[in-house]
Amino acid sequence: MTTSDLMDDIRTLRTTRGVDATTADRVFRDARTVGSFLDVPVPDELLREVYDTVRWGPTAMNTSPLRLLVVRSREGRERLAPHVAEFNRDRVLAAPVTLVVATDVDFHEHMATLVPHAPTSGEGFADKHDARVAMSRDNAWLQMGYLVVGLRAAGLGVGPMTGLDATGVDGEFFAGSAWRTLAVLNVGWPDGEGTDRPRAPRLEWDQAARTV
Amino acid sequence: MTTSDLMDDIRTLRTTRGVDATTADRVFRDARTVGSFLDVPVPDELLREVYDTVRWGPTAMNTSPLRLLVVRSREGRERLAPHVAEFNRDRVLAAPVTLVVATDVDFHEHMATLVPHAPTSGEGFADKHDARVAMSRDNAWLQMGYLVVGLRAAGLGVGPMTGLDATGVDGEFFAGSAWRTLAVLNVGWPDGEGTDRPRAPRLEWDQAARTV
Repeated sequence: MTTSDLMDDIRTLRTTRGVDATTADRVFRDARTVGSFLDVPVPDELLREVYDTVRWGPTAMNTSPLRLLVVRSREGRERLAPHVAEFNRDRVLAAPVTLVVATDVDFHEHMATLVPHAPTSGEGFADKHDARVAMSRDNAWLQMGYLVVGLRAAGLGVGPMTGLDATGVDGEFFAGSAWRTLAVLNVGWPDGEGTDRPRAPRLEWDQAARTV
Repeated sequence: MTTSDLMDDIRTLRTTRGVDATTADRVFRDARTVGSFLDVPVPDELLREVYDTVRWGPTAMNTSPLRLLVVRSREGRERLAPHVAEFNRDRVLAAPVTLVVATDVDFHEHMATLVPHAPTSGEGFADKHDARVAMSRDNAWLQMGYLVVGLRAAGLGVGPMTGLDATGVDGEFFAGSAWRTLAVLNVGWPDGEGTDRPRAPRLEWDQAARTV
């Protein structure tokens, strides 16, 4: 096979199996962190649709530890707001819906379902609390990446916030459970771009990658 | 506005601003964890294109700590293979290209570039090593979620591996730097579905989400 044939093969694979670049840009390059939303609700059905899509993304051993608290009621918002950084409180009170993104430290209890080819694989985690904390945290952050993309692919805008008292949120909403708060996402339909801030730069490939 | 008008608005926003469901399915529902690749290379230009797209995904304070080691040479693979779990070694030796996904604990050194509206914000992190370790880890896992989606959107298949000796990989490739290994991704053009394993289930919405 000549180099030219090979480049043709690669171009064909890229085109037939991939997503067109305009679509990929829509969820990455064009989408912004949104602080300003239209006064239009986000139905539960749409959140479910997004979850039903992004839950298929890969995690270690298919452990899938991501958990979501959908904060929709006035009372729910008022319970959440004191635990986020002061400059984020108004956003939590105003967003069409806010998701507390959490991880389940007891993810191993679902492994009989999630790992059907090795249904007892969860048992080995029972006495490994620290390993579960680390693994559940890493993999739920990974899934949060899928979630941000999935929300944007549904046309929604996302305002992620990590300036918060995670332990406070856990105490408020997750007492007696093994869910642990990682971040909060305000979600809604962006008003215009949803932000007035200029796009901040990113690192170039040569700053972020090396080759061996 | 009537409920019916509102539902029309939501449908219009979903359709005009979102990505069609077939396309979203391509990167989530249809894509599998790939172990078997076509004998077709993955050019550096395509990896750069993927990075140039996914680097725009949001991170806390735009810290963007994801770093990639592209393992392409025979020598590079042979250095990496002993540090992954035994059942993964042949895959590292055989994949068209393998990415070591890492995080940069010294991400704060780039904040003058990355946070132009607060160019000195990195200085506060200089003496907070433990906070940087945690924050860089969380946010690089988040970016790994964007990366998996971006590779799939380029038509590529991904075989993520977390069964590895991260400290061993760090010693082999990142000695004297602040890059820390999180996971390894085999990358290439899937041979068919790239796997013979039946699709494992995921948790239902009602198992993974609560509402307040």
